[in-house]
Amino acid sequence: MRTPPVEPSRFASLWSDLAVIGRDRLRGGYSRHGFDDADLHLREWFTAQAQRRGLDVETDRNGNVWAWWGTPGAGAVVTGSHLDSVPGGGAFDGPLGVVSALLAVDELRVRGVRPTRPLAVACFTEEEGGRFGLACLGSRLMTGAVDADQVRRLHDGAGQTLAEAARRAGVDPAHMGPDPERVAMIGSFIELHVEQGRLLKSASPAGAPAAIGVGSEIVAHGRWRLSLTGEGNHAGTTVADDRHDPMIPAAATVLAARRAITARPGAVATVGRIQPVPGGTNVIASRVDVWLDARYLDGAATGELVDEIVAAVREEAALEGCALTVHRESMSDRVDFDPGLAMQLAEQLGAPIVPTGAGHDAGVLAAHVPSAMLFVRNPTGISHAPGEHAETADCITGVEALADALEVQLR
Amino acid sequence: MRTPPVEPSRFASLWSDLAVIGRDRLRGGYSRHGFDDADLHLREWFTAQAQRRGLDVETDRNGNVWAWWGTPGAGAVVTGSHLDSVPGGGAFDGPLGVVSALLAVDELRVRGVRPTRPLAVACFTEEEGGRFGLACLGSRLMTGAVDADQVRRLHDGAGQTLAEAARRAGVDPAHMGPDPERVAMIGSFIELHVEQGRLLKSASPAGAPAAIGVGSEIVAHGRWRLSLTGEGNHAGTTVADDRHDPMIPAAATVLAARRAITARPGAVATVGRIQPVPGGTNVIASRVDVWLDARYLDGAATGELVDEIVAAVREEAALEGCALTVHRESMSDRVDFDPGLAMQLAEQLGAPIVPTGAGHDAGVLAAHVPSAMLFVRNPTGISHAPGEHAETADCITGVEALADALEVQLR
Repeated sequence: MRTPPVEPSRFASLWSDLAVIGRDRLRGGYSRHGFDDADLHLREWFTAQAQRRGLDVETDRNGNVWAWWGTPGAGAVVTGSHLDSVPGGGAFDGPLGVVSALLAVDELRVRGVRPTRPLAVACFTEEEGGRFGLACLGSRLMTGAVDADQVRRLHDGAGQTLAEAARRAGVDPAHMGPDPERVAMIGSFIELHVEQGRLLKSASPAGAPAAIGVGSEIVAHGRWRLSLTGEGNHAGTTVADDRHDPMIPAAATVLAARRAITARPGAVATVGRIQPVPGGTNVIASRVDVWLDARYLDGAATGELVDEIVAAVREEAALEGCALTVHRESMSDRVDFDPGLAMQLAEQLGAPIVPTGAGHDAGVLAAHVPSAMLFVRNPTGISHAPGEHAETADCITGVEALADALEVQLR
Repeated sequence: MRTPPVEPSRFASLWSDLAVIGRDRLRGGYSRHGFDDADLHLREWFTAQAQRRGLDVETDRNGNVWAWWGTPGAGAVVTGSHLDSVPGGGAFDGPLGVVSALLAVDELRVRGVRPTRPLAVACFTEEEGGRFGLACLGSRLMTGAVDADQVRRLHDGAGQTLAEAARRAGVDPAHMGPDPERVAMIGSFIELHVEQGRLLKSASPAGAPAAIGVGSEIVAHGRWRLSLTGEGNHAGTTVADDRHDPMIPAAATVLAARRAITARPGAVATVGRIQPVPGGTNVIASRVDVWLDARYLDGAATGELVDEIVAAVREEAALEGCALTVHRESMSDRVDFDPGLAMQLAEQLGAPIVPTGAGHDAGVLAAHVPSAMLFVRNPTGISHAPGEHAETADCITGVEALADALEVQLR
C-alpha cells in the first residue's frame, strides 16, 4: 500500500537550515569548499541530522562522512552526494542529494521498511574541487584514483596545503589514501542530483518532460592549465612591437575553445578562470594562467578537442614571442553507469535515461561498484551559479523516487 | 671647483636597505602599496634617513611625507618621488627618485651649498594606484585634482576602505583633501625617475645614447573598466548555443586593444587585469571585469582609441547575448612639463629631452607649479616588472645631475 506523499514542509525545513550556510556575499550564491568554515558548519549540520535519525556517524580517513542505518558491512546500500559548492555556486548541486537521502531514510521508516542489509548516507569531500582544484577529491582518494601524496601537497589560492586544511578539520592527512575495505562494503551506490542541463525539461528520449531521470553515462571530461609566459613591462611605455604580452594568446585560448566546440555538436570547452601575473591595470603581464575545462564523448575525442585548442594557442603564443606550457590537471574518461541498475531504476520509476556532461562521485565509484544516478529536473538548466533551481514539487518526487529505489535495493 | 664623484658604495648602501622591504614572493619583485605594511616600513626608513641628515620630517594631511632642509616656506625647491610599487613591480620605479634625492642633499652639502630658500624631499602616497586603483593619489589629493570624499570611499581588493587604511597609518582621513598653502610653497618640483622605455638607450633626439634625459611631456592616459555580464552556468552541461559567456567579449577586448594600437604608432592600450566572477574552472562566468589602460597623444586621441576598442567589444558582447557597461576610472590629459625649466635643465646637464607614456606625480604638480623630470637610462626598457633595472653608474650620474639641477634652483 502506498504511503501518503512526503510533506513539502519536511523538505523545506531541512532546506532552510542550509540556506544560511556559506553564502557568498561577493559573488552571490554559495561558496562552500573542502574543510573551510562553511564546510565544517555543514558537516556539523549533517552529523546532527543523522544522529537525530538514530544513524551512526563516522568520518573516514579521507574526510568523507558516513551515516549508517544498521551495522556497517558487506552489501551496504549507499546513497548521498556532497555538500561543497563551486565558488558562487547554487544551492542544489550536492546538498539536494544529501537532503533527499535523509528524507528518504525517513520515508523508508514511514513505510515500515526493515532493511536486510546496512544503508549509509555518505557526504563526499570537495566534490567540486573549488578550493584545491581536484574534483571528486574524497571519492578519488577512497578508490585510489589519485595519489595521496600528490593530494596532500595541493594548496588553495591562499597557499594553505590540503594537509593543513584537513588537519584543521580533524582529519589526519597522514592517513589519507585508498580505503579498499570501505569500497568493498558498498553493494550499490545511488546518487541523487539536480540536473545540470535541460534534457528533462524539454523532451526526454521517451518524448515527454519528466521530473526525474536516470543517468546513463558521464561523458569524458578534464581540466587543463595553460601557462603562458611573456615579458612583464610597463603598460604606458612599451610600444606594440616591443610587447610579449601573454594576455594575447590567453585571449586566443578563450576564442579557440569556442570555435572548437561550435564545430562539434555536444562538445563543451570553457575558460572560466584566468590569472594574469602580476595582475595590475598598468602592467603588461609577465605570465597568464588559463584553465580549460573540456568534455566530449570519450577520452580520445576530448583529447583531440583539447589538442586543436592548444595548437591554436601555441601558434598565437609563438607570434607574440610567448612560451606555452600545458599541464593536464585531471582527466576522466567516459563513465557508463551500471546498465542493469539504470534499466531497472528507469523501469521501476517510469523515468527516462539521460546522459550528463558533469562529473560526480558516482562516476568515480562506478569503476568499482554498481552505481546509478537520479536526476531532478532543472527548469532553466542553470547550474554552478546562484540561479540554479529545482521546483520543490520535483524535489519531493525525487525523495520518493530515491526511497523507492533504496527500498528495492534493501530487499 | 668640481667635487669628486659620488661614491657608488653610498648609493649601494641606501639601495640595499630597500631591497628587503615588500618583496613579493608570489609574483617576484616588490608589492608595496599605499598604507600597507611594506609602505609603513618604507616611511619609517625614509624618516630615519632624513633625520640622520638633520632634515625635519612631517606627514601632510594626505599622507605625503616631507623632509625639509631649512624652514618650510615660499619658493621651496622640492624633489622626491614615491615609494610604492605596482603589484610585483621593480625596485627602481619610485624609490630611485627618493634615494637620489637623499644623496643629492648629501652632495649639495659636500659642495658646501648654502640654500637661499628651503629644500624638501617629498614621498607621495600611492603613486601607482596598486591598492586603491587611483594613480597619483597623494599628489591628486593635495592639488584638489580628485574629490576627497570619493577617495575616502575607495577600497582595496580585500574590502578595506582607504579611510580605514589611512587611519591605521596614523593619517586622519577626515583631513584629507586640497592643501593649497602647501602647493603655494612649492617654487619648483624636480622628480628623478627611472626611464620606462628605451628612448635613452637607443638614440636620443640628439642622436647619441645618454645616461640622463629631461622630460618634455606625459602623453594623455586613462583607465577604463569594462564590465561584461552574461549568464553563469555549468561548464560541463551548457552547449555552445545556450551560452552567454562574458569571457568571449572579454577576450575580444584584449585583441581589439592590440589591433587598435598596431594601427596607431605611439599609442598603447593594455589589458593586464581581468576578473571573471565566480572564477571557477568548471563554471561559465556570469560576469567579467576587464581593465583597459590606454595612452595616446592627447585626451581626444586617447578617447577615440578607447571608443574604437569599446565599439568592437560591444559588437562581440551583443553577439554573445551579454551586456557591457564602461566605467572610466581615471583620465589625465597630456601634460607638458615647464618648457623653460626643461630647456634650462637640458642645457645645464647636456641631456636630451624625451617624452614619456607613464604618469607621475610631477605630471599632477605641473598644472600648479613649474615641474620637471629627470629620467635615468633603462637598458631594457622593462618597468613595472621584477626585471626593471638601471646600471649603478647611470644612477650615480642621476644623483649628480639632480644635485646640479637643485643647486641652480637653490641660488
